Amino acid sequence: MTVRLRIDLAYVGTEFHGWQVQPGLRTVQGELARGAGRLLGREVLPVGAGRTDTGVHARGQVAHLDVAGAAEAERLVRALAGTMPPDLAVTGVRQVSPDFNARLSATSRRYSYHLLLGRDLFRPHCWQLDGDLDRTAMDRAAADLVGAHDFTSFCKAASLKDDGNVCRVDVCRFDWPADSAILSAVLHVRANRFLHHMVRNLVGTLVEIGRGRRPADDVPAIFAACARSRAGGMAPPQGLVLEEVQYPGRLLDPAWREPAAPGARSPEGESP
Amino acid sequence: MTVRLRIDLAYVGTEFHGWQVQPGLRTVQGELARGAGRLLGREVLPVGAGRTDTGVHARGQVAHLDVAGAAEAERLVRALAGTMPPDLAVTGVRQVSPDFNARLSATSRRYSYHLLLGRDLFRPHCWQLDGDLDRTAMDRAAADLVGAHDFTSFCKAASLKDDGNVCRVDVCRFDWPADSAILSAVLHVRANRFLHHMVRNLVGTLVEIGRGRRPADDVPAIFAACARSRAGGMAPPQGLVLEEVQYPGRLLDPAWREPAAPGARSPEGESP
Repeated sequence: MTVRLRIDLAYVGTEFHGWQVQPGLRTVQGELARGAGRLLGREVLPVGAGRTDTGVHARGQVAHLDVAGAAEAERLVRALAGTMPPDLAVTGVRQVSPDFNARLSATSRRYSYHLLLGRDLFRPHCWQLDGDLDRTAMDRAAADLVGAHDFTSFCKAASLKDDGNVCRVDVCRFDWPADSAILSAVLHVRANRFLHHMVRNLVGTLVEIGRGRRPADDVPAIFAACARSRAGGMAPPQGLVLEEVQYPGRLLDPAWREPAAPGARSPEGESP
Repeated sequence: MTVRLRIDLAYVGTEFHGWQVQPGLRTVQGELARGAGRLLGREVLPVGAGRTDTGVHARGQVAHLDVAGAAEAERLVRALAGTMPPDLAVTGVRQVSPDFNARLSATSRRYSYHLLLGRDLFRPHCWQLDGDLDRTAMDRAAADLVGAHDFTSFCKAASLKDDGNVCRVDVCRFDWPADSAILSAVLHVRANRFLHHMVRNLVGTLVEIGRGRRPADDVPAIFAACARSRAGGMAPPQGLVLEEVQYPGRLLDPAWREPAAPGARSPEGESP
């Protein structure tokens, strides 16, 4: 009997060409497939919650994978973590409902984006910014991003979906350091879905506001324009971390079966 | 007229074969010499305060270098930082007394050693330890290391000096995290001098005490043995950071000349 497994993952994205398998390139999905395939003795391809881009990190990536029964499941639970390279950690393997889909079942995702307000060679996983930022203006603009909006202006143009670009952002908030000796600031963003490059484009725009190159109240006009060119540049990948993916609790129960066919599919899955 | 410059440096040691120039290998001294040599149009060799080993980091390394006059000095002050690779930062260039010697004039050095009490892929510059440590025992042993002692048992045997192995340690103290969600602990060590591998051998011994493999009061007996084999193993390099080197204030004054020949030379300079 087929058993569906949920696999939790953390990785430093620096040395990966993103999540998705690509011929001849080192990817997270590829390393995970290699490790699981070695234990199962056949080719497999785990499905991930989000296709993080090259250089993007994760503490809470989720994948699912079907195996042939309890013995195979037990083998992965016991040994999958040990097959991973040093920059990729399997933090959990557990059986879930056959209706659990790491990508399509997700109800929200949470990302963090790390800014370095100065120089520190020992903090490579940040966007290093020189000069002062207007934190009040950035907080104001971050608050304007909360809610259900059409995020077309913040989406890579070639990736727009047929089913609309409205996302419901329920958290968009900076944690600023209280002490000027602490150089790191973090933007936390949680939403029901993300469009391609959305977080990095939000961050790029917020930093332009913080540098005074855009007004603090620019966000509503950017939304209204529905044009990528109206928003700011894209922040670099090394500051972005996929922190957590949320699922309906019932799908985490191995015995659960959905009573009917799943509803409309989420267009989720690309790196924001 | 010859001008002596003090150069302050920070580096991530991971990709360097230590401080000291070696043919065909990437070293900190070599990169610094290359950058300064390019600006001066001739070969130079800066002298460093401490010869950090392969993989050891620095936030406060100090070097000195002689240049031919004010114009050359100005060129290095203005442009040396810009010639450095991303993992090596020149944080200061200033004129000092001709009697300043980055290695021989130092009155104390301060190191930190970083422990990771669990797993975090994003913290590579640590010694990752699994399992619980007896913090009380480690604090007790760290306190026993403070004072003037013969550190022969903590020194790489082949590096012992002719002039004795007594070091005066004035700080040896752990900073433990108050919150169990914080995985990092730091040992701070400051002394008038360090023997080769001394900090890493201290840390290795303290961790053995924390794991219950040695008694908390083992340090006095280790000192008394004066034998490397009596102390614990050597901690790995990636947790060690040269934080700061102290000098007599007068030597930082470009106009100062020592009234007499310097006294006994310090045997300082190898990586602890």
